[in-house]
Amino acid sequence: MPAEIIDGRAVAKRLQGEIGKAVVDFENETGFVPGLGVVLVGDDAASAMYVRMKRRACERVGIHSKAEILPASATQAEVENAVRSYNADPSIHGILVQLPMPDHIDEEAVLNEVSLAKDVDGIHPMNLGRLGMRGREPSFTPATPTGVMALINETGAQVEGAEAVVIGRSNIVGLPVALMLTNANATVTICHSRTRDLPAVVKRGDIVVAAVGRAEFVKGDWLKPGAVVIDVGSNSVPDANSEKGYRYVGDVDYAAALAVAGHITKVPGGVGPMTITMLLANTLKAARS
Amino acid sequence: MPAEIIDGRAVAKRLQGEIGKAVVDFENETGFVPGLGVVLVGDDAASAMYVRMKRRACERVGIHSKAEILPASATQAEVENAVRSYNADPSIHGILVQLPMPDHIDEEAVLNEVSLAKDVDGIHPMNLGRLGMRGREPSFTPATPTGVMALINETGAQVEGAEAVVIGRSNIVGLPVALMLTNANATVTICHSRTRDLPAVVKRGDIVVAAVGRAEFVKGDWLKPGAVVIDVGSNSVPDANSEKGYRYVGDVDYAAALAVAGHITKVPGGVGPMTITMLLANTLKAARS
Repeated sequence: MPAEIIDGRAVAKRLQGEIGKAVVDFENETGFVPGLGVVLVGDDAASAMYVRMKRRACERVGIHSKAEILPASATQAEVENAVRSYNADPSIHGILVQLPMPDHIDEEAVLNEVSLAKDVDGIHPMNLGRLGMRGREPSFTPATPTGVMALINETGAQVEGAEAVVIGRSNIVGLPVALMLTNANATVTICHSRTRDLPAVVKRGDIVVAAVGRAEFVKGDWLKPGAVVIDVGSNSVPDANSEKGYRYVGDVDYAAALAVAGHITKVPGGVGPMTITMLLANTLKAARS
Repeated sequence: MPAEIIDGRAVAKRLQGEIGKAVVDFENETGFVPGLGVVLVGDDAASAMYVRMKRRACERVGIHSKAEILPASATQAEVENAVRSYNADPSIHGILVQLPMPDHIDEEAVLNEVSLAKDVDGIHPMNLGRLGMRGREPSFTPATPTGVMALINETGAQVEGAEAVVIGRSNIVGLPVALMLTNANATVTICHSRTRDLPAVVKRGDIVVAAVGRAEFVKGDWLKPGAVVIDVGSNSVPDANSEKGYRYVGDVDYAAALAVAGHITKVPGGVGPMTITMLLANTLKAARS
């Protein structure tokens, strides 16, 4: 029996519907519209596309959005000033700094400028520290990891006591996913490029989260039969059959994994729509608090 | 062949000798003495003993120490004021808030008052966040986990690519040890009370760090033969043969583990002296920066 597909688009649509209703309620109660301020530096096509998708999603649920789009030649001070002006702007409740920044920009210094109360991306070190600590609560949990957790929960799989394997240890996905799974009482193993015998480690996972950014890297026979597989990757690969000449695939060899996993996300249509949804949810939360 | 014993006292003595020399050099160069400010609230005997040991160690290496000892009835404002006065005191470079605080004190609020530049205990959420994040550096790494890493390195065992199992996920030991081992390129599994089949998970560990606070909890036959075993626990158990009526044992069944492990720490005389040593090292680092 092939794996059940976890339909990120459908879950995102349902949640965005709920967020849209809550935004209307919020507006009726307070007279305010929640607002998201985006900072984009340079002309990376993928970044520009992500920003467009995020702004469109804001529109869909009734969240007001502004974008400060700076040229690739922008100075550190200009980028930090863009963040600071959002910090001071009462119509902006959440700030999203679209990464990556151009090489000459000190990304950490920019992110540190984001007011904790407006860190709807949840990637301020203070929020990540609190996310990992017992008895502390981050202002916001990071968007992609929160989306990953929501998709796992959609399957009905028991997370408590499960063995979870996280492949990748990035600041925005691997690390916070590992912390959130630990908080949910899974037994978490964090894998990375130096992990010896990765297939054997992945095989232990009742839950596997792949976030390495390598096309179809995780093979079907690495998986434990019945595992819940969440594929965070989105890698463009050449495809002569596509009009654009490429298509997007995940970090998991989907066709092979489908035959082994119990539940699996698709790329595209899995984690991506959830990331945007969680950003919307965090912006509404920021407006409320 | 029984395990080699990792002698924390000897390592600590050697490192404290080096710190003592560096303190003299620092004084000759700058005319200043590094200073540690301790905040102790209430009359818990163990806490008072830890504070005494820390102050004695300061004296040994030439670090100046002050202690603000408040009664168990101290108010939140009084405790926070003690921290704030150390923040403002130029003769104090490091601040140690001895935990636990009495129940009526909001521990998190107290710890958040500690200036990041003086957080020599390394347990500010901002420092823990940075510790876990790639490309970020905490001002200080937490004392006990840093001591654990130093003892692992003493054995000469290769950490990169090793399977490490951390038992316990506390803010001051389990979590930061897991982050530091991941940073050192081990493949880390974080275990806790909800872990299913803990013996089987521990068995994978080339490196095992036990920090659960339960006397002789980890059994010898849970260990992989040859493993490096670091025992962070310090639990008092009744002992009719002891003058005091009790003795301290670790989280690992030492006698049984000795026959299986490759390297093992003793309790007492393992991690404990290293914690104090790393606090001294961080205080010197704080004075230097």
